[in-house]
Amino acid sequence: MQTELESCFTRHRDRYLAEWKELLAFPSVSTDPRHAQDCLNCADWLVRQLAAIGFEARLLPTPSKPVVYAERAGDPTKPVVLFYGHYDVQPVDPLDEWVSPPFEATLRDGRLYARGAQDNKGQLLYALKALETLIELQALRPTVKIVIEGEEESGSRGIAQALPGWRDLLRADVLLVTDTGSVAPGAGTIVMGLRGIFHLTVVLGGPHHDLHSGVHGGRAPNPAEGLAALLAGLHGADGRIAVPGFYDSVRMPSPWEREMAARIPFSPEVFAARNGVPPVAGEREFTPVERVGFRPSLDINGMHSGFGGEGTKTIIPARAMAKLTARLAAGQNPESCLRALIAHLQANTPQGLRLEVTEQGIGGPALRLNPDSPLVAKARGVLDTLTGHDTVFLWEGASIPLVTGLAAVSGAEPLLVGFGLEEDRMHAPNESFALEQFRLGYLYVGLMLNAL
Amino acid sequence: MQTELESCFTRHRDRYLAEWKELLAFPSVSTDPRHAQDCLNCADWLVRQLAAIGFEARLLPTPSKPVVYAERAGDPTKPVVLFYGHYDVQPVDPLDEWVSPPFEATLRDGRLYARGAQDNKGQLLYALKALETLIELQALRPTVKIVIEGEEESGSRGIAQALPGWRDLLRADVLLVTDTGSVAPGAGTIVMGLRGIFHLTVVLGGPHHDLHSGVHGGRAPNPAEGLAALLAGLHGADGRIAVPGFYDSVRMPSPWEREMAARIPFSPEVFAARNGVPPVAGEREFTPVERVGFRPSLDINGMHSGFGGEGTKTIIPARAMAKLTARLAAGQNPESCLRALIAHLQANTPQGLRLEVTEQGIGGPALRLNPDSPLVAKARGVLDTLTGHDTVFLWEGASIPLVTGLAAVSGAEPLLVGFGLEEDRMHAPNESFALEQFRLGYLYVGLMLNAL
Repeated sequence: MQTELESCFTRHRDRYLAEWKELLAFPSVSTDPRHAQDCLNCADWLVRQLAAIGFEARLLPTPSKPVVYAERAGDPTKPVVLFYGHYDVQPVDPLDEWVSPPFEATLRDGRLYARGAQDNKGQLLYALKALETLIELQALRPTVKIVIEGEEESGSRGIAQALPGWRDLLRADVLLVTDTGSVAPGAGTIVMGLRGIFHLTVVLGGPHHDLHSGVHGGRAPNPAEGLAALLAGLHGADGRIAVPGFYDSVRMPSPWEREMAARIPFSPEVFAARNGVPPVAGEREFTPVERVGFRPSLDINGMHSGFGGEGTKTIIPARAMAKLTARLAAGQNPESCLRALIAHLQANTPQGLRLEVTEQGIGGPALRLNPDSPLVAKARGVLDTLTGHDTVFLWEGASIPLVTGLAAVSGAEPLLVGFGLEEDRMHAPNESFALEQFRLGYLYVGLMLNAL
Repeated sequence: MQTELESCFTRHRDRYLAEWKELLAFPSVSTDPRHAQDCLNCADWLVRQLAAIGFEARLLPTPSKPVVYAERAGDPTKPVVLFYGHYDVQPVDPLDEWVSPPFEATLRDGRLYARGAQDNKGQLLYALKALETLIELQALRPTVKIVIEGEEESGSRGIAQALPGWRDLLRADVLLVTDTGSVAPGAGTIVMGLRGIFHLTVVLGGPHHDLHSGVHGGRAPNPAEGLAALLAGLHGADGRIAVPGFYDSVRMPSPWEREMAARIPFSPEVFAARNGVPPVAGEREFTPVERVGFRPSLDINGMHSGFGGEGTKTIIPARAMAKLTARLAAGQNPESCLRALIAHLQANTPQGLRLEVTEQGIGGPALRLNPDSPLVAKARGVLDTLTGHDTVFLWEGASIPLVTGLAAVSGAEPLLVGFGLEEDRMHAPNESFALEQFRLGYLYVGLMLNAL
């Protein structure tokens, strides 16, 4: 089967690339209301694409953005496969840092550059192309259901609300997800865990209007200063999150998990060279791999107050705001953690200023897979053969909020194997995805579906 | 003389208002390079205006924006008066908070609304109109020199560099400044002190590019979090600036100064109602009036990092920046204080992040006037008579960086009496100035020049 897949890929490579570029041309930024129509256009494109390759495809309405749904009946003795992906992408700012326009996919040195090139349009399309090939080869045996949502990058609101009503529709045995990363080019990586996530926006209100910082400096409380103090108080000098109760129910990794985590390649020097900072944040008692795999984190995604232009503006700003996200470890309850954080912020609001939480949302809890599952063993076998290397078990720091929910509703066991790499710069300017990783993903999906 | 001035004002009120609106129509924002030409146009308008009322007027070049200079010879037995003002204004953002456009002056309820309505175009124009009237009445006896600079709101760079070369040109006995405030409508207020000022922009560099906050949250240092900690560390819990050595040479107020300061009307309740915050910042051991009059302050004027739009963007930002200004008390050396602050920031830069000071500038040291001067006594007499109230002695928190320099170069004794009020919202959206305060300023300048 690998040979057939490889020759199909070679034959259709240019068409796959053209379709990939088409898909990347939709600025489907779900977090930005100005791109609402672009998101719908992207979903329509996928419905047409799925219908063309042999699926019954349609849009499922949700209270927010529609979900692309497709189904193709197969051998009833085979496990039913549910595939999950998303058609939305992250915002593109700062736009001036892009070498080529984010929605005009550009091929350079074997990599396709565009917002979503990897996350998730690239990793979504290789799966669809593998399905197309198996259908062409009359080799797709299991029933396959496909769910592609449009709000993964902004909290999965719509699908999360609609999911409970789709219990029968989505019933499945295996939940196939390719929206994850690999530890190295050409390697096979099974994601054994994902962190949970919640977000909130905090506004600290001060004066009715910007005050003159000369006339009032040193007596009027400054919201920027207050916010700095409030945010600085979220972590202790030991790198731990300083919110009381935050770690109460964190599940510690098992000895096997720590042993496997220790095998994940990680070099502080390579990390520093690639990212520009050493991996020195977080809890000293855990390794950098364990910190993102097994421990929670709390990050400031944005912080804004007052004047930011050229020159000076001598004001005490009227307000200050920060956008925060927490990543949660297995065992943590997102609702309780969010409540604990808000209570901590309220308790520490500086005198004279007013705290307001203007936005908050829970993506979902963390996911931790069972290492003894036969499905995991099967995937490991496929990857070992395909790559010629020992498959790596990975506990990811990122979140796919919906995977936990989808697994619960569908009754399916999740299997997370993807081919994203750190160098892809997902969420940042100049996101890209290597054609070679795209090809590997395509082969893996084909072989895995064939092995079920 | 008061009667003549009053009748002149009544007769010419509409023309004064029209000229005031013309002057306010120039968006002379000195801090913004896009308004460079507007600043020049504003300076030209003033040269024409001064020539029209009887001065020899011209532009004096500086290494930056030109200074409007005018002179009219008078009785050589009289003290030479040097008048100082500025034709530049603060930026207008946030623009959407303005009720009427900032550069289309609009009269509502006896107040003229526009950027610069008070600071300094209103307080400048009433002085020019008083001079015009005295000339009309053939009652202007002293030689008058006028200096109107174009960079007061952005550090007075040009004039500060040119000043040493103007020693002969500007020689004078009295330095008349009206760019100050009054404690209440209709009151007379002599400013006995101004704070010094310096500014700097601090950038904390982190990752080469924004990082995914899931993939790296809890191991990659976050510049926004680092900046929050760095800025939070600038003040102690006691409200004092926590920079070592910052207070070393602060001159304490004399018993008379503290006694006079205690007479300045200040109500924490009125302050809170007017500004939206209680006056709770700063050092507990000083009153709110003393804190701005006799003590230094350090304010964040702006703080920016990462995502600030709608929705979420799950990143660890690549950088974070803050704009800071310090206000200095009498006795403090601006250079040493700035050096101490930078050293403190460097010493406390969080691990893994890179500190850069991208902009810095010193406005000037603080000014403290001699309470026993005959000029102060004369001004007090004029104001007592004009207002019918006891003149108030005020130590202002704001800075007019150039006044100290001008006093030194010209050899003149500064006299700072102005009619700005807190409700004018200078530096904020919807700046305005009451016509009645404009009229009072006009009368004061006329009477004071007459009394010299």
